[in-house]
Amino acid sequence: MRVLGIDPSSQATGFGLIEGEGETTRAVAYGVIKPERTLPLSGKLNDIRLRVESLIHDHNPEEVAVENPFFARNVRTAITLGQVRGAVLVAVASCGRPLFEYSALEIKKAVTGYGQAEKEQVGRMVQALLGLDDPALEEDASDALAAAVCHLNTRLFQKNVEEAKL
Amino acid sequence: MRVLGIDPSSQATGFGLIEGEGETTRAVAYGVIKPERTLPLSGKLNDIRLRVESLIHDHNPEEVAVENPFFARNVRTAITLGQVRGAVLVAVASCGRPLFEYSALEIKKAVTGYGQAEKEQVGRMVQALLGLDDPALEEDASDALAAAVCHLNTRLFQKNVEEAKL
Repeated sequence: MRVLGIDPSSQATGFGLIEGEGETTRAVAYGVIKPERTLPLSGKLNDIRLRVESLIHDHNPEEVAVENPFFARNVRTAITLGQVRGAVLVAVASCGRPLFEYSALEIKKAVTGYGQAEKEQVGRMVQALLGLDDPALEEDASDALAAAVCHLNTRLFQKNVEEAKL
Repeated sequence: MRVLGIDPSSQATGFGLIEGEGETTRAVAYGVIKPERTLPLSGKLNDIRLRVESLIHDHNPEEVAVENPFFARNVRTAITLGQVRGAVLVAVASCGRPLFEYSALEIKKAVTGYGQAEKEQVGRMVQALLGLDDPALEEDASDALAAAVCHLNTRLFQKNVEEAKL
């Protein structure tokens, strides 16, 4: 199963595409979307939308996972973050992919076993779980991969529960 | 000149399309976009995007005006509002229309002459300016028409200044 994780933020939008086959999970693609600085706000948001749509077309994930934010420094930052989320969610829906939201706590717990884990721990565990060794892995991309891992784990757990019922 | 005003909000997105010809300004179309309740969040946002794109295709406004929010009750509401704004802004950019943002104060001042005007005063003045008599005009649609009027006024003022310079 292929899952695209996205971490929208006001500065840069991380993405991480993973594939789980049997016992192994590998990273297919990851990185950071930073729209052209010279674009006006609406152009930046549309750029993010188009690039998420391209990612979905190119890599064909079955499902998409994002972090459900409940925290932002202030109302101004929250509106900016919401705008980027809006552009990302439009892309996911226009490609007909189902979207799953997880809290930061759920994602950290899925990746490190501990809901209060530090950003760095999450980054190290994501790399270990996916067999990556990339010292240049950006935090936004790492967070996106973490959201994807969290969703894949949830799906595998659901599948195991269903099989145990049979 | 045709201007589309949009008032994104977490509940319903108002729109108001006006046309200024010489001394008169009239309302071409106005109303409220409420996405299907049964849709998931990403589907709702994509629905708003598609309906704003349809409005632009159907009525061909040259420019689009929206209120620039700097206030929201809390971070949660601000993220929700930001998401709707993101969907609207993606639609405006994907149709290649320039977007102009005005503060609530600028819009109220343009419509009523007073930046601290009450919502009801704005509604009454919008109807008077556009020669409307619609007791059923919804507040979100009225706010969208007000944003459009504010932008058209700004454009007329700029034109007058330029002509005075010649």
